[in-house]
Amino acid sequence: MGFFAELDEAVKKNNSLLCVGLDPDPALMPPGVGILDFNKAIIDATSDMVCSYKPNLAFYEAEGVKGWDTLKQTVDYIPKGIPVIADAKRGDIGNTAKAYSKAIFDELGAGAVTVNPYLGLDAVEPFLNYKNKGVFILCRTSNKGAADFQNLDVMFDGKEMPLYQAVAIKASVWNRFGNIGLVVGATYPDELKLLRQNYPEMPFLIPGVGAQGGDLKLAVSYGLDTRGGGIIINSSRQILYASRSKDFAQAARKAALTLRKEINLYRSIP
Amino acid sequence: MGFFAELDEAVKKNNSLLCVGLDPDPALMPPGVGILDFNKAIIDATSDMVCSYKPNLAFYEAEGVKGWDTLKQTVDYIPKGIPVIADAKRGDIGNTAKAYSKAIFDELGAGAVTVNPYLGLDAVEPFLNYKNKGVFILCRTSNKGAADFQNLDVMFDGKEMPLYQAVAIKASVWNRFGNIGLVVGATYPDELKLLRQNYPEMPFLIPGVGAQGGDLKLAVSYGLDTRGGGIIINSSRQILYASRSKDFAQAARKAALTLRKEINLYRSIP
Repeated sequence: MGFFAELDEAVKKNNSLLCVGLDPDPALMPPGVGILDFNKAIIDATSDMVCSYKPNLAFYEAEGVKGWDTLKQTVDYIPKGIPVIADAKRGDIGNTAKAYSKAIFDELGAGAVTVNPYLGLDAVEPFLNYKNKGVFILCRTSNKGAADFQNLDVMFDGKEMPLYQAVAIKASVWNRFGNIGLVVGATYPDELKLLRQNYPEMPFLIPGVGAQGGDLKLAVSYGLDTRGGGIIINSSRQILYASRSKDFAQAARKAALTLRKEINLYRSIP
Repeated sequence: MGFFAELDEAVKKNNSLLCVGLDPDPALMPPGVGILDFNKAIIDATSDMVCSYKPNLAFYEAEGVKGWDTLKQTVDYIPKGIPVIADAKRGDIGNTAKAYSKAIFDELGAGAVTVNPYLGLDAVEPFLNYKNKGVFILCRTSNKGAADFQNLDVMFDGKEMPLYQAVAIKASVWNRFGNIGLVVGATYPDELKLLRQNYPEMPFLIPGVGAQGGDLKLAVSYGLDTRGGGIIINSSRQILYASRSKDFAQAARKAALTLRKEINLYRSIP
């Protein structure tokens, strides 16, 4: 089954558009708990109420050599039927991008990946060629610095538009296997709204609610497609670090439950 | 000692502007030779004639869990005095970029890194804050797809210019610790020439000669700064895979010798 079909199944089964970002940060984690144990506890506590998990590779690489082992074990631990998005934001020239696609899809076994568009098509294509995998292209990211380049006005196809819009156009042109989505931050609802208007059927991976301050209601109402789906709302810190005590997993479950409920509430408003 | 000072020492000591890209690809390597042994043989054969080494992380990640171990052992094996550029092309939001900077500088122990500018300042800043490390920002990359976005005309500071020029301007504004360089592909000599004219003192990391077809003579003559330096010419496949037989290390040495000589010839032409 392809990534987006598996995602749809998980959305239905768990009645959820919530993705939990598995970004273990020892400085925020409960003291004395190892990363793998922490991840397993979070997964056990939330796997019946999410549509996907999204480990960000940086937090594993920061652990050095053992980090990739922890990441691999984490991915392997996630129950079948809950797809995994490797938040890697990779982008490199053709033959190198091919090595990255092998790393993330074949070695790690993720169902989808995030990629950076700055190097153009050949940085993205090796990932796209895995037709059953999902490829989320960074479009309008959730961070403050995003505007530095992404909002510059560019001339594209004879029209003036912000760079992130040109990225979205290219992404839709490159989407011949139907396995592309866009990363659009919840922190910029106007951009999100515009992108949804222009791309009614493109899946959006939406980070930026919670710790980053994005407005959940706007993210959901602006992001939903006409079928009432098409968005993945990611939350990391709000769920992982709901408590730093022994009850962290229960607190994470509670936070995920609340967030799923809130998303579904906004989802149901016509 | 900071990265760029160490680089200058190595350039002088080995009379070389050549960087060898340690990109082990099992499909191109001599049969029966493991990656770590391959790297060690290449390093042994070339360390007296290079100014730096540049492992691209993709080729290690493609090996799965053991890849980071091989990468770490490779970096540790490189003789003191020859700086290491981790070709990682990372770019992520602030707190995540911080984890990546920890991974590459503290855990891996590289002297410099390549980063992607698409996410703006907060994706780059955690790397810059390591004042003794080098940070090469992707500006005009060597691949075919580079033009997809990097050459789009943008409005920046009230002027129209290609996106990669806007990236170069931002990079020079961000350069308050003097530890930024630019990645500029040898495959686009006109862009390289223009960037050197605009940024006479910025170090350039130049990939794209050899297998990618960049013109070495133009890369050197257009790239050199007024002191006859300021460039790092990277070659990977041309050196690593000069031979697929048992004599691969000798063949690599010969190819590196030839390339260093050629670079120094073009360097000496006024």
